[in-house]
This record gives sequence, structure tokens and C-alpha cells, in this order.
Amino acid sequence: MIGLDPRLDALPANVLPGGSPAQRIVAFYREALPRLARHAPCVKPNIAFFECYGSDGYRAYEEVAAMAQQHGLLVLGDVKRGDIGSTAEAYAEGHFRCNDAVTLHPYLGLDSVQPFLAHCRSERGGKAVFVLVRTSNPGAKDFQDLQVGGEPLCDVVARAVTRWGQDLERSEGYSPVGAVVGATWPQELARLRQLLPHAWLLLPGVGAQGGKVQDLAAAFDRRGLGALVNQSRGVMQCFQPTATDWLDRIDQAARDFARDCNAVAKAP
Amino acid sequence: MIGLDPRLDALPANVLPGGSPAQRIVAFYREALPRLARHAPCVKPNIAFFECYGSDGYRAYEEVAAMAQQHGLLVLGDVKRGDIGSTAEAYAEGHFRCNDAVTLHPYLGLDSVQPFLAHCRSERGGKAVFVLVRTSNPGAKDFQDLQVGGEPLCDVVARAVTRWGQDLERSEGYSPVGAVVGATWPQELARLRQLLPHAWLLLPGVGAQGGKVQDLAAAFDRRGLGALVNQSRGVMQCFQPTATDWLDRIDQAARDFARDCNAVAKAP
Repeated sequence: MIGLDPRLDALPANVLPGGSPAQRIVAFYREALPRLARHAPCVKPNIAFFECYGSDGYRAYEEVAAMAQQHGLLVLGDVKRGDIGSTAEAYAEGHFRCNDAVTLHPYLGLDSVQPFLAHCRSERGGKAVFVLVRTSNPGAKDFQDLQVGGEPLCDVVARAVTRWGQDLERSEGYSPVGAVVGATWPQELARLRQLLPHAWLLLPGVGAQGGKVQDLAAAFDRRGLGALVNQSRGVMQCFQPTATDWLDRIDQAARDFARDCNAVAKAP
Repeated sequence: MIGLDPRLDALPANVLPGGSPAQRIVAFYREALPRLARHAPCVKPNIAFFECYGSDGYRAYEEVAAMAQQHGLLVLGDVKRGDIGSTAEAYAEGHFRCNDAVTLHPYLGLDSVQPFLAHCRSERGGKAVFVLVRTSNPGAKDFQDLQVGGEPLCDVVARAVTRWGQDLERSEGYSPVGAVVGATWPQELARLRQLLPHAWLLLPGVGAQGGKVQDLAAAFDRRGLGALVNQSRGVMQCFQPTATDWLDRIDQAARDFARDCNAVAKAP
């Protein structure tokens, strides 16, 4: 999975140099997405980097998501929403219009997630959610490590994610209720994989944040399924803004990343 | 504080009947905001009810926030964001452009909040944040009640909120790092007020969710300060869509709500 976190100062200088931020972002991905689609099944745009340009940025998000889907890429919207039930219904309606899956905060509990789960049934659209369990940042320790009845809070959240997914259809043994587990904590992967036997694990934090693909074998099952490794900056910012061969560089970086992921997934 | 949670089926039928959802929402608040400004210092638009109309809805949010500020209302954006540090910077930049304050999730810890705190210093704009501590929904119990070292998780979060605000300037004894505490849990207010001595408490959940203004005295200090009671549906949906006197009804409901809040704030 490739993360799409557009930063103006990291866009190629020769992409629509006179355009607005939103226009430049759309133009960049219009060229890059076909290359990503050669190597990855899925992209993860983080909506924060679009929202920071206001409603123009929000429209750019919608355009980028639609373009990605036109190229056969699944779109996992990294939106990290979480609100009370009636509000969660509005979020689910809006975000499942342009995304195939979204990330969610757990702090408000089951009734904040349920409106999204309704969309996960195949007759309602077959969408998916990824609940934050163990995040990739240093501050993950502040609350997620707190001991609750002899285990860390993130393990309690992991068990809840397993429960929340248990009544939904499975495909290849996996439910549409996945979990976000930072690739920056490889020593916790085996334990969380066990607590989340039917959850796809979304693993962010490879590259700039310090996570290494080679350390993530425990996230995959014996068939090489069950995990989605994400990299953002290492692929989409693998060039200097002044470079003119940036499209080939992105293509090569995505190819290398896919090769590394496949090697780890298929490790015995 | 009045919550702005626009729902199409609850808008007055005579407001721009042929308009798009986003146009109708803006037209509704254009008429209603001057009335709210007579009685309340602050509005709390929940961005979910705008985002569900996509980028048009997002633009409507920006317009409504700007109109509210033109009428002298503070805008507390109920956006409930929360992401790792570098992403939080992008959220802070975007959302503090149109909001005076925002709500935040605590699950990712201090480094997910820090980029927002930078904007809370007066020389950087004097913004404010409200961290979710004890939410108003039934699912609040799922994780916020978990026992951590002999106290519920929400108390641990409350202590963190106090720490996060301690190095920032105070006004009237309060820091710009506030806390969301649901008005639906009045029996917890006195304890949380004590754990959060310098935090403004944002109290949602009055009215449709079952909270009662009369039960919230413990949230205020002896001067009648320290708490912001929010009501959304009870004011902004206090009429049938076919009513033609809806503006007067909103005015009256906001007046009554303000009177109830002031009575409780000033109770001995």
C-alpha cells in the first residue's frame, strides 16, 4: 500500500508550477497513480494533507480517490474519524462515497463504529474499516501502553476489534474490520496478530518513521495474507523536487517496495 | 454554546427550497446565526454533517464558520481529529484557519496534540483545543471506564489534559487546553472538574441525548465560569420543517437555553 500525503514542498517542480496547491496535487497524482497501480493494490491518502488546503483540498481528495479507483486501486481513506452514533452515520455516509475503507478512532467505543459496520456488509457496499489499535508514533505509549487488568490498553482494543468483526462475512478468512498496528513496534506484532486472528493489519510507519519491512513477517499468515504494509514518503518523496525523472523514480521505488513486501509475506 | 449539526430533513422547508444541500445549509445559518449571536458566545459546528455532502459541504462549513465569526461568535469546530505529529501539523494548519478552537481525540498521545498546542500560544493565534475525556454516548463505557491503576481511563486522560495545558498562559484561571465531558454523566462531573482545575469543560449531550442543564452545576467554578454547555437539536431543530416562524422559535429556544445555563452557572 502506498500512502498519499501530498506536501507542496515535495511535489515535482515541473508539475503545474503556476497552479493552486489543490490543482498541483491533482496533477501530480494524475501522473503518478498509473505507475502505482502497476505495483500496489491499494493507496492510502491521508485526508489531513488535503484538508489543510480547505475545501479546494477536500475536492482534490475526492478527485484523487476517484482517479485511483479508475486505475483499479482500492482507496483506504486515512481519515481517523470517531464520533457518537448519530454523527458517525454522517461520517460513514460521506466517506464511504469516495473511499473503499476508512481508518477509525476507538475511544468512543462500539456505537461510534457501528454506523460504519453497516456499510461493511456486502449488500450495503462491502466496505471496510481499520480501527486504530497500536499507532506508529512515539505518543502511542502515552495511553496505549497503560496496563488494564494485566495487559496493555491496545490489547483490550484489539480484542474489541475482533468482537466487532465477528458477525460480518469473511473473505479468505478475514473480516472487514481491520486494525492499524504501527510497523514501528515489530516486537508487538506476533502478540497482536494472535489477538486479531481475522483482522487485516494495516501497518504504517515504514521508512521515514523508522519501521522496516523486513521486521514485519509476524503480521502475515502462512499464506502471506493478512497484512497491508504502507509506505508514503519513501515512495512518493523519493526524489528532489527539481528532478525531472521523478515518475520513473516513483515507479522504481514502488516496485522495490512491493518486492520487499512480497518477500516478507512469503517468508516461511 | 449552540451546536450546528445541519440535517437536510430538519431544515425549514421555506429556506432555498430548490437549492443544493450545501446551499440550503448556508442559507439556513445565514438567517439563524444573527439570532444565536444574541444569546450565545460560541457555536459548535460538527463537521461530519458538512462532510457528508463532500467538498461542497466542506465549503459550506467554511462559509458558516466565517459568518459566525462576523457576528462575533467564537467557532469551536467539532472536528474530533487525531493523528501522528507530522499529520497533526497539517490538520492544525487547516482547521485553525477557520476555527477558534477544535476538538481532538486523545488515543495517539501527546505528540498528536502538540502541533495544535503551538497555535494556542497568544503570539501564534491564541487558539484552543478540547480533548475528548468522557464522551456523551453510551459507548463511552467501552474503553473510558476501563480501570487503570485503580481509576477509570478517562481520569488518566483528564490528568494528561491538565499536564498538557500547564505551560500555556491562562486567562481567568483557565488554560487553552479544555476537555470534553458529556453532560449525560452528571455524577462524574465533580470528580472530573477536580482533575481538570484549569480546563474549560465542553459539555455536549444536553437535550436529545438526555443530559439536563440543571444537573451540570458541578462543572462551573464559584464565579460561574469554566464550563461551556452545548445544545444542538433542542435549539436548531425546535420546529417542524413546515413551520414559517422557525426563526423566532430558534431565537426563543436559544434565549431559554442561555437563561437555564446562566441560572446553573450562578447557582451557589
